[in-house]
Amino acid sequence: MTPEQLDDTGVAEAEAAPETSPESASHDGENRLKPEFCRSVQEALRDEDYDRVYDLVEPLHPADIADLFELTDDDLRPELAIAIRDLMGVEVIAELNDWVREALVERLPADVVAEIAEQLETDDAVAMIEDLDREDQRAILAELDPEDRAAIEAALAYPDESAGRLMSRDFVAVPEHMTVGDLIDFLRDNRELPTEFWEVFIVDPRHRPIGTCALSWILRTPRSIKLTDVMMRDQSLIPVGMDQEEVALRFQKYALISAAVVDEAGRLVGQITVDDIVHIIQEEAGEDVLLLSGAGEGDIYEPIRDAYSARVRWLIANLGTAMIASFIIAFFDAAIEKLVALAILMPIVASIGGNAGTQTMAVSVRAIAMNQLTRANTRRILWREIRVAMLNGGTVALLIGMGTAVIFSPMLGAVIASAVIINIMTAGLAGVLVPVLFDRLEQDPAVASSVFVTMITDSMGFFAFLGLAVVCGLAG
Amino acid sequence: MTPEQLDDTGVAEAEAAPETSPESASHDGENRLKPEFCRSVQEALRDEDYDRVYDLVEPLHPADIADLFELTDDDLRPELAIAIRDLMGVEVIAELNDWVREALVERLPADVVAEIAEQLETDDAVAMIEDLDREDQRAILAELDPEDRAAIEAALAYPDESAGRLMSRDFVAVPEHMTVGDLIDFLRDNRELPTEFWEVFIVDPRHRPIGTCALSWILRTPRSIKLTDVMMRDQSLIPVGMDQEEVALRFQKYALISAAVVDEAGRLVGQITVDDIVHIIQEEAGEDVLLLSGAGEGDIYEPIRDAYSARVRWLIANLGTAMIASFIIAFFDAAIEKLVALAILMPIVASIGGNAGTQTMAVSVRAIAMNQLTRANTRRILWREIRVAMLNGGTVALLIGMGTAVIFSPMLGAVIASAVIINIMTAGLAGVLVPVLFDRLEQDPAVASSVFVTMITDSMGFFAFLGLAVVCGLAG
Repeated sequence: MTPEQLDDTGVAEAEAAPETSPESASHDGENRLKPEFCRSVQEALRDEDYDRVYDLVEPLHPADIADLFELTDDDLRPELAIAIRDLMGVEVIAELNDWVREALVERLPADVVAEIAEQLETDDAVAMIEDLDREDQRAILAELDPEDRAAIEAALAYPDESAGRLMSRDFVAVPEHMTVGDLIDFLRDNRELPTEFWEVFIVDPRHRPIGTCALSWILRTPRSIKLTDVMMRDQSLIPVGMDQEEVALRFQKYALISAAVVDEAGRLVGQITVDDIVHIIQEEAGEDVLLLSGAGEGDIYEPIRDAYSARVRWLIANLGTAMIASFIIAFFDAAIEKLVALAILMPIVASIGGNAGTQTMAVSVRAIAMNQLTRANTRRILWREIRVAMLNGGTVALLIGMGTAVIFSPMLGAVIASAVIINIMTAGLAGVLVPVLFDRLEQDPAVASSVFVTMITDSMGFFAFLGLAVVCGLAG
Repeated sequence: MTPEQLDDTGVAEAEAAPETSPESASHDGENRLKPEFCRSVQEALRDEDYDRVYDLVEPLHPADIADLFELTDDDLRPELAIAIRDLMGVEVIAELNDWVREALVERLPADVVAEIAEQLETDDAVAMIEDLDREDQRAILAELDPEDRAAIEAALAYPDESAGRLMSRDFVAVPEHMTVGDLIDFLRDNRELPTEFWEVFIVDPRHRPIGTCALSWILRTPRSIKLTDVMMRDQSLIPVGMDQEEVALRFQKYALISAAVVDEAGRLVGQITVDDIVHIIQEEAGEDVLLLSGAGEGDIYEPIRDAYSARVRWLIANLGTAMIASFIIAFFDAAIEKLVALAILMPIVASIGGNAGTQTMAVSVRAIAMNQLTRANTRRILWREIRVAMLNGGTVALLIGMGTAVIFSPMLGAVIASAVIINIMTAGLAGVLVPVLFDRLEQDPAVASSVFVTMITDSMGFFAFLGLAVVCGLAG
């Protein structure tokens, strides 16, 4: 869609490919900073050659400067911040990993942090200081001018991870009587607009949003038309207390670019734009794998002490469930003494069941997170998983059963095959029901499902195998 | 930021909260369709009361109609499509789950699909037919008018999951000599513009992009200013062959709303907008949990046959690794026969190691996916994980060691404690090194890391525990 056909020569075809993602002194072919580059920055920092550091870093994009901070050794990061002081703009701070930013902000003096906070939009300033302890927050807020302080304090009053924390108070709202021409004139004359915005909100006299207007509609509509005639009325309003995960689902479901945030009285108090949401979607979708694995919400920059406390609790929970499985084994100790093959084979049954349970659980947890698995289709999904489990169970049971029959005895082969089928079916049921149950209890199914599903599949694996062996007289 | 202070009464404060996410006949409080609503639609479908179906569905947002399709039994979906034929717009098709759409499209006649495809933008039309087999694709393409057919065929020529598949060919590109006024006039006069766009691309005479202009900048700039004076030159160009995961990382890193896609000659051939990327980010970030669990890329709508073949291969791989662990146990069968407590306790050591390995692996896989764990910091992250493993190992070893010492014997307590420490340390190493190795070999670390890490922790768990027990003379 071009106004003119600009490409009137065939020559362009023959030209060399443009290097849009070129290897350079600083970047590899996948747009990541090169280890050699990071190393030379760190060497210069250790030599306290700050001019050289500045020369190296200066050509980088702010998002790459943020990456550089993350790739630099912890103890060198404050020095890096000092060396490139005047490159530490809004975009660098906004792009920094939360843990790295928190540690850095903690080590910088309050007035420097306040200076940075004043350049940021409210939502980014809030993100910068929200994880600091009260005292540090207060010291920084005291350095801010009253207007900024009020905005940040108001945002901090909303619950963690709510729309109120996420929203920006910089937006464009105009009254409904305006025409397209009025709006364009207003935008041209007003110096205090946000730097970038994608939609304009139309509000009633009580400041309640009644419609939204994409800038592209305004640009292609004659000046005399009233805004109320081009705006879209069917808009998604975000209550200020809505959880950020819910906000992200809304943006995704309705393909929003920006959305109005309203307070309890329905008045427009802020806007959320899609660029803030992209991080949330990434975080929330990626979080499930960490939570299910029992690694908490940690990433590679989480301080060791936090990583330890997040993970050790799940290891201890796992110790508990493993001990339950051990009690079941202990119950059959006489049988194992008589037939040591049982001890050799029993971990296979437990392991296969655990794996099958994890598969189903991962699918269920994702579906719940994406609002796909609801009361309206739980029974259908359960039945689906049972059928998949029958197919999987049949296949694996056949393999292990035949192998065991050849190596040990046909009867032991039949016993292990039956135990595998029972355990994979149990795993399919538990993999759906445990996450669904946590969801019904309004708990995040990603957090604790894993422990319960593993407990069920381990215990059932040992119980079914050893129990069947005894019943069949194999260890009598 | 409002042109006038509109809220001049205090009355609004006292008004009732607006129900922005109200419970209704069709929706629950979390904006999901109610089971009762889905059931009444299905009942009406079974009664072939299509007027009632239409009346029920008509008030829904297109994204909710897509949800309704997903929540409806497979065999009723084509009937639903027929009943609400003229509600089946662009947004419904675009929002449908891939599996559900594919199955539905397969059952509709080619001319109906072609009719829908002509309403869609190229990228959505491509998404609709790309998974069909060649023959069905050809039948549909034959029904299209030549221009649409050419566009879709061109898009299908790019590799799966590339920028070329994802991009839209509808965009606004203007020559560099234009002023802001020229552009506004051009936009007002041109009827064939895309329905929504957020940025305008400025191109040179060879149609290579030289800058980008956000619509908000155009709206606030006087008409006489040249576009080249307001546009941003530092733009992120996406090569047409770039993988969609890489595209999503670019959008996220540089907070893009839209980006120009260029061919090998550097000419502008399409644009990608953030609303298409939001789905990719969600998919790619959510995929890791499914891949790591060995559930393939499946969701709850994946056909059973596909779910079976995706999962059973990992269960069989798991069977293989479990058998390796069994060989190790078999090697110590004499020891187990003498001291059956070894059989009772050995699964605990393997299980704890497996859990610790999964924790570290999940963190590493996420970090690799987000370009955080690179050659520049692998050694540092490895050292970090070793330290976390020492803390975790020490804690868990203390608990299980003391318990075992009390219940069985102090020597067995010391043996199991040592084995747990060894296995958790091994798990920490394997949890970083296995995914990093796959990444270096240019394989997706989420796909196969799990099998190898589990193999290592299971084998090491049994070997360390049983081996130490023998060395310490416990089963001599």
